[in-house]
Amino acid sequence: MSVKVAVNGFGTIGKRVAEAVLKQDDMTLVGVTKTKPDYLAMIASRMGSLYVPEDRVEKFQKAGIEVQGTLKDLLEKVDLVVDATPGGVGKEYKPLYEKFGVKAIFQGGEKHEVAGFSFSTLCNYEEAEGKQFARVVSCNTTGLLRLICALRNHFKVKSVRATIIRRGADPAETKKGPINAIVPNPVTLPSHHGVDVRTVLPDLDVQTVAAVVPTTIMHSHVLNVRFEEPVTREDVLKVLEEAPRILVIPSELSGVKDTAKIIELARDVGRKRYDLYELAIYEESVSVEGDELFLMQAVHQESIVTPENVDAIRALTGLVSKEESLKKTDSTLGIVRSFSELIERAASNYGK
Amino acid sequence: MSVKVAVNGFGTIGKRVAEAVLKQDDMTLVGVTKTKPDYLAMIASRMGSLYVPEDRVEKFQKAGIEVQGTLKDLLEKVDLVVDATPGGVGKEYKPLYEKFGVKAIFQGGEKHEVAGFSFSTLCNYEEAEGKQFARVVSCNTTGLLRLICALRNHFKVKSVRATIIRRGADPAETKKGPINAIVPNPVTLPSHHGVDVRTVLPDLDVQTVAAVVPTTIMHSHVLNVRFEEPVTREDVLKVLEEAPRILVIPSELSGVKDTAKIIELARDVGRKRYDLYELAIYEESVSVEGDELFLMQAVHQESIVTPENVDAIRALTGLVSKEESLKKTDSTLGIVRSFSELIERAASNYGK
Repeated sequence: MSVKVAVNGFGTIGKRVAEAVLKQDDMTLVGVTKTKPDYLAMIASRMGSLYVPEDRVEKFQKAGIEVQGTLKDLLEKVDLVVDATPGGVGKEYKPLYEKFGVKAIFQGGEKHEVAGFSFSTLCNYEEAEGKQFARVVSCNTTGLLRLICALRNHFKVKSVRATIIRRGADPAETKKGPINAIVPNPVTLPSHHGVDVRTVLPDLDVQTVAAVVPTTIMHSHVLNVRFEEPVTREDVLKVLEEAPRILVIPSELSGVKDTAKIIELARDVGRKRYDLYELAIYEESVSVEGDELFLMQAVHQESIVTPENVDAIRALTGLVSKEESLKKTDSTLGIVRSFSELIERAASNYGK
Repeated sequence: MSVKVAVNGFGTIGKRVAEAVLKQDDMTLVGVTKTKPDYLAMIASRMGSLYVPEDRVEKFQKAGIEVQGTLKDLLEKVDLVVDATPGGVGKEYKPLYEKFGVKAIFQGGEKHEVAGFSFSTLCNYEEAEGKQFARVVSCNTTGLLRLICALRNHFKVKSVRATIIRRGADPAETKKGPINAIVPNPVTLPSHHGVDVRTVLPDLDVQTVAAVVPTTIMHSHVLNVRFEEPVTREDVLKVLEEAPRILVIPSELSGVKDTAKIIELARDVGRKRYDLYELAIYEESVSVEGDELFLMQAVHQESIVTPENVDAIRALTGLVSKEESLKKTDSTLGIVRSFSELIERAASNYGK
């Protein structure tokens, strides 16, 4: 069985999820949509995969970009749509998805209520089965949840306090800022990230504060986790090293000591668009004092939700178990479990 | 016949040139060198290609990174070395290259006098034959020369005036600036770029002024070219569109209107490390008034000299003609001649 998938919105998330879907053997990409004729629309058109809203057909024709049909034509053909429209726009499309009787996966830019169910693979994959709608939580929340659920598998987590240092804009967003300020985001505490974590883990004591800084490449988190009992640094590191989709980086040994160098490493590995699906944790930052853990981690905001979107497709359609989906997604996307595995990939990709 | 090549220095330029050499069928990469044990050294070691200066062997052993031999061991085995050491360091190595009787290609960070011959494929490929040393001019000079030599093939160029808007640092150079200033570079005019252009085209009337700005992804040039006779915009555009290694970008149609979006396009095409070997010219900026041409162009500082280094290996060793080298280099590196060809590449790479 192969799930027929549409991706509504071919921007930062949509172009990555569509590409990931193409790599799976149990799903088929039927088409993607664009509202604006630009070079991404040209690429989708060249692939024979471009659908546009009815009222945009003429605009694309004028730009000389051939379309394969309308959004409604596309929804007729699929079982499931990944909504990768801009934040807040997904809810406008929900009635259409309902009308066409398709399952839909929304992104973290939508409110929890739009789907009524927020998804993060490592935390609640099994709860998705049979549902029509799911919402893959945002990049920052995905990063927080990967860490928290990995820790909860082995320790009793009492509370989580996190400072989110957000990137100001994505790399190509030349009209967004800040370019020279640190912006409390928002200035009324807490930030929404902790609230968003609780859409997946309702009982967790979690509080977050966020600030936006002038960078485009990654978010960073400063974590303070309190456990019910004392833990050792060794035990925590072991859990993080064995957890899926978490990459522990030995900074001193490798020279990979900041977000710019993490991205440079992803470039050198040969990851398309330098995507880093893994949550990156600086090994040296992992510190334990009694029942308290401190660490710093970095999130590639553009790509970290890609594997979770692929899993969500399987989870909603009941294709396979969590373990099997994790395995399929991670092997097709080239996700690694360790720094040395990443170095091996870089060496074997070199010159190819 | 296959030229045996070493790359001395495995940084921004070295890692790209070594990778490009691996893709050629008429040259062999014997090894690369590193002075610092870091993740790039780990990658080279994993490839079985890592050589280090004699006084660094112990340092690498301590870091647990296996080396294949010393720089001298490497020089014993090769016909030619591409010196990609930091600017100004290449001249220190020249006596060693002479001692081992190997040909050497230096980079634009060295003075012209170190090699005595400065190289740019489209301008003076044939003059390299039989020489022991060549210097591939810097990224900015390569960008200027590609444009100028393409124009000189069809028009009589009287003078060139250019403003170079330089990136402040490469993406991973987190210790360099500026992060919030526009820095005249230098404040005493002219900048060295015009002088550098004349190391290849000694008779050209060219003057340049440069300023450094807070960005890491590309340089930009504002060009004012004066011809002996009036030209038409149409003729100039035709020349640029037909010239090798120049990519004319239709900004209005594609939405690719700034350096960030050029790089985003390179990411979407699937270029490793988002390398853009082509000189990018904004089509809409190309303006002609009588005998004067104005335009804006962008240079990917990390990668633009890669193809010229590969050509320089062939030029120094007399392997093939300029036309044949251009063809081999460009097809192996996936260099395109037009925007629509780039879109085709993006579509055919999608999901691969």
